[in-house]
Amino acid sequence: MHYQAPLADIQFILNDVLHAPAQLLALPSFAEVDADLVQQVLEEAGKFVTQQVAPLQEVGDSIGCTFDAGRVTTPPGFKEAYQAFWQAGWPALACAPQDGGQGLPAVLEAVLFEMLSGANHGWTMAPGLLHGAYECIKHHGSEALKAAYLEKVATGEWLATMCLTEPHAGSDLGLVRTKAQPRSDGSYRVSGTKIFISGGEHDLTDNIVHLVLARLPDAPAGPKGLSLFLAPKVLPEGTRNAVHCERIEEKMGLHGSPTCVMRFDEATAWMIGEPHRGLNAMFVMMNAARLHVGLQGIGLLEAAWQKADAYSKERRQMRAPKAQMSGAVREATSVGASLISEHPAMRRILSTQRAWIDGGRVLAYRTAIELDLLKHHPDADRRDTAQRWCSLVTPVLKAAWTAQAFNGASECLQVFGGHGYVREWGIEQIVRDARVTMIYEGTNEIQAIDLLVRKVMPDAALSLFTLLQTLSDDLAPHVAAHAPFLDQVAALRQVTERLVQAAAGDPQLLYWVADDYLRALTLCLMSWAWLQISHATRDAASATAHGSRWTEPASAVRHWVLPEFAMRLHIITARLDSGA
Amino acid sequence: MHYQAPLADIQFILNDVLHAPAQLLALPSFAEVDADLVQQVLEEAGKFVTQQVAPLQEVGDSIGCTFDAGRVTTPPGFKEAYQAFWQAGWPALACAPQDGGQGLPAVLEAVLFEMLSGANHGWTMAPGLLHGAYECIKHHGSEALKAAYLEKVATGEWLATMCLTEPHAGSDLGLVRTKAQPRSDGSYRVSGTKIFISGGEHDLTDNIVHLVLARLPDAPAGPKGLSLFLAPKVLPEGTRNAVHCERIEEKMGLHGSPTCVMRFDEATAWMIGEPHRGLNAMFVMMNAARLHVGLQGIGLLEAAWQKADAYSKERRQMRAPKAQMSGAVREATSVGASLISEHPAMRRILSTQRAWIDGGRVLAYRTAIELDLLKHHPDADRRDTAQRWCSLVTPVLKAAWTAQAFNGASECLQVFGGHGYVREWGIEQIVRDARVTMIYEGTNEIQAIDLLVRKVMPDAALSLFTLLQTLSDDLAPHVAAHAPFLDQVAALRQVTERLVQAAAGDPQLLYWVADDYLRALTLCLMSWAWLQISHATRDAASATAHGSRWTEPASAVRHWVLPEFAMRLHIITARLDSGA
Repeated sequence: MHYQAPLADIQFILNDVLHAPAQLLALPSFAEVDADLVQQVLEEAGKFVTQQVAPLQEVGDSIGCTFDAGRVTTPPGFKEAYQAFWQAGWPALACAPQDGGQGLPAVLEAVLFEMLSGANHGWTMAPGLLHGAYECIKHHGSEALKAAYLEKVATGEWLATMCLTEPHAGSDLGLVRTKAQPRSDGSYRVSGTKIFISGGEHDLTDNIVHLVLARLPDAPAGPKGLSLFLAPKVLPEGTRNAVHCERIEEKMGLHGSPTCVMRFDEATAWMIGEPHRGLNAMFVMMNAARLHVGLQGIGLLEAAWQKADAYSKERRQMRAPKAQMSGAVREATSVGASLISEHPAMRRILSTQRAWIDGGRVLAYRTAIELDLLKHHPDADRRDTAQRWCSLVTPVLKAAWTAQAFNGASECLQVFGGHGYVREWGIEQIVRDARVTMIYEGTNEIQAIDLLVRKVMPDAALSLFTLLQTLSDDLAPHVAAHAPFLDQVAALRQVTERLVQAAAGDPQLLYWVADDYLRALTLCLMSWAWLQISHATRDAASATAHGSRWTEPASAVRHWVLPEFAMRLHIITARLDSGA
Repeated sequence: MHYQAPLADIQFILNDVLHAPAQLLALPSFAEVDADLVQQVLEEAGKFVTQQVAPLQEVGDSIGCTFDAGRVTTPPGFKEAYQAFWQAGWPALACAPQDGGQGLPAVLEAVLFEMLSGANHGWTMAPGLLHGAYECIKHHGSEALKAAYLEKVATGEWLATMCLTEPHAGSDLGLVRTKAQPRSDGSYRVSGTKIFISGGEHDLTDNIVHLVLARLPDAPAGPKGLSLFLAPKVLPEGTRNAVHCERIEEKMGLHGSPTCVMRFDEATAWMIGEPHRGLNAMFVMMNAARLHVGLQGIGLLEAAWQKADAYSKERRQMRAPKAQMSGAVREATSVGASLISEHPAMRRILSTQRAWIDGGRVLAYRTAIELDLLKHHPDADRRDTAQRWCSLVTPVLKAAWTAQAFNGASECLQVFGGHGYVREWGIEQIVRDARVTMIYEGTNEIQAIDLLVRKVMPDAALSLFTLLQTLSDDLAPHVAAHAPFLDQVAALRQVTERLVQAAAGDPQLLYWVADDYLRALTLCLMSWAWLQISHATRDAASATAHGSRWTEPASAVRHWVLPEFAMRLHIITARLDSGA
């Protein structure tokens, strides 16, 4: 089975849990974005994803991208689907109307990309960097660059890349060696080799816009000596630029997306933004890009869950024990073997993954709405609140939901038994594809350090405590049911205070506990998200909201997900007690 | 880099931690197996593994096995390595001398197969089933069958398969439909289709001996109506039997091992053992086979650790925080980027995997020694103790160390950053290969149910409590340091008693908590294994035993592995408290 766009679930989270349409309508920029429009956009998006993109998932893996003498051929059908995609206006969804966009909220783009990633992660890599490149050119590009490139990138007629990593440099941008020599006409000659360039070369579009980090001749060493350049594959006069794809990587998965080694050989390029401030220009798009990787995780986990759930309801295997007391598991209806879905170990896997998907959606969509508020809200205080939310929650979404995509897809594979290990069912592809999301856009270990060292500590946790207060306030009218969450928050506050005090005397402390700290905050946020969902299911009138659909994963959160919180706090506390 | 046989580590565990030579020498069958002989065998094994098998790891994956019109071609070099392997006598290591074997202890075979699996999991699948087939034919075969097949299988001149699973049946052997019709000459005609048959067809040996579960015409339904048959690929008169390979599976990994769909088309076969008692004949080998899968997990994790450890000591990446107080992490020696191994998050990954490998070795080798004692000890009480150990510890080793192989190899992949995701470094292959070990020989969920429902509960946990007492007794002279372990044991006893009392009233209870229970016992055993190691390092004179080699993983166990114990007990207790 192919991925099916889970529109009813998504709309329940957007409308009933997050009240997204009301929040968006209140913004002057989205005064016409009412619930009907949101629904219409999502339905069209779901149709496109399910009909055009999902059927290319298997061929993207089995045939994959091929390389021959500098040219990259994408899998059969990829080009046609991409042409249909940009011509229908999907890349321009959240771009400004004056740039050729539709001016819709970022949260709709977030939902679109979650669905695309679930349907076909490899294909989705192609347009995945477009919006970031658009923002980067829009905010930092010269008027001439904007005139030449902004609309092409906004609409997706041309695709874009980010050329950061170099051989032997990995995540450490301070080691970048690529050089940019100024020319008399204001352009630059860029020379160097970049690796891990997603979509560095392909046949999907006529031109490719490369955003390249490089050093000017007088640049200081380290990350503060980097400038950003735009180097197109095809120059404005129509000739080919000196940008060469040397090979594509053989990877564990994601075969539908070419990962290129790119050589810039005195390639013609133009600077974006100011000299030595290239990272600043790139950081504009970082929160959004990391949120999108978190959304990939949610989409991939949904895809794995759909396959495992369907399989578990089709196949029978041994006799499941009968429930005497629990309504959560139906009794076996036949005298022989039970459905796989009736076995407790399998129900546990399925409802736990369901819990991570739904909880992740609440947090990711809320983050996307906060990005909309950050950009469009007239009140500076509200924009500050939005900035705080995005800054703290984004690394959590990126790290925790990509790890869950891989580990959870592997759990879903287990539902298939031996059949899960063979290609036929497509579940093992999701496990392989998902693994990369734990690495790119900053490894998950870097996210954890980003959260604790760069986001929580600098203001002695003031931002974090304000965020926790916001979360608690959201729940205020229902105090009794929320006691366990409020206990979690209190415990996290306490350990955070101890970390703030101890960090100065032990420079390694934060680095040893960063992963545990990110998990602890993840579990607080999951707890909060599921309280929001449970609250909405009680109030909701629609049938979607009722039955075991939401109660079973809610119970999975309590029984199997949240107990990790105490373990993480124990690990951090033990490190603190050990004399740091 | 290829896998290197870790002989010094292995010998330290065997000699200093487990005192294996002394235990074996005390058995009449092994009166000549002294420490020198053990060392000599292991050194030769290490040489063979490192020189002949490890270099074929990559080609086993990239070229893999190919299928053409019923024939299977193994990857280049596989046949030559296998011929050298059996001719050197390795498959016959632990077979009886009268059958063409060398009569050495099972624990040496265990070490051999751990190393082989680490070096090349795919290749090792070929001889992996030999010893089980040997035991099965030896104990249940007729004299005629033994005369024709026992020595060929003992020496590995012919390879063997186990044909159990059928389409739509999975782990549920009760659903087997393959039929066996008696013929007048005492042989049978076997007809049916079997799937997931490792090594069902290949070019490594002249003949293949298939052990096939099938039903006689008068057989009762369900698993108690199954009989076991031997059907060779080539019949004694030299003609081809009607056993056909229809295709090989495309899999996530393990491409060096052909996973075959086999059609038996009135194939000539002979019964092994008694009618309808086929599963009994097969269960002879089950503990040994499951132990071997656990050893595969240990070998694969060692292989992943070796790669990640080497990479982390070669590459530099950003600046690691300096330690002021901890001796565990060396300070960065250069003013620039630090070695990857100096970053706390990476050290944690590496020392945690190291802890699982070493702890797993203590438990797996001890289990193999118990298998030797079970077979050869003159005292019935000691044999009972050995039986108890194998029965309870084997499912733990199979489930926990295969899960750790996959999850830990994935952690090791993370040490490589983006390079881990590309094929070049070989780490992603280990992740893909390892995934199958969580499924075959009984999925890990089945192991957990086997442990709790079939091993712990039937005697109201008497066997388990006796095992826990044995573990505690092993540590008695050092009470102070062992207090946390004794607390764990007490907590596990307590929750086990509650489960014994509550199980009758709630038929699903054990199935909901089986995974947590297996993890809790796993962590008790890890705790015990590391106390044994720490004790041995204090006493040992050799240099191998000192420095951070053992103290760093010992600290990883305390800080990051054991905290899961309380979480698992919390989950079980919460289920008990919820009214079961």
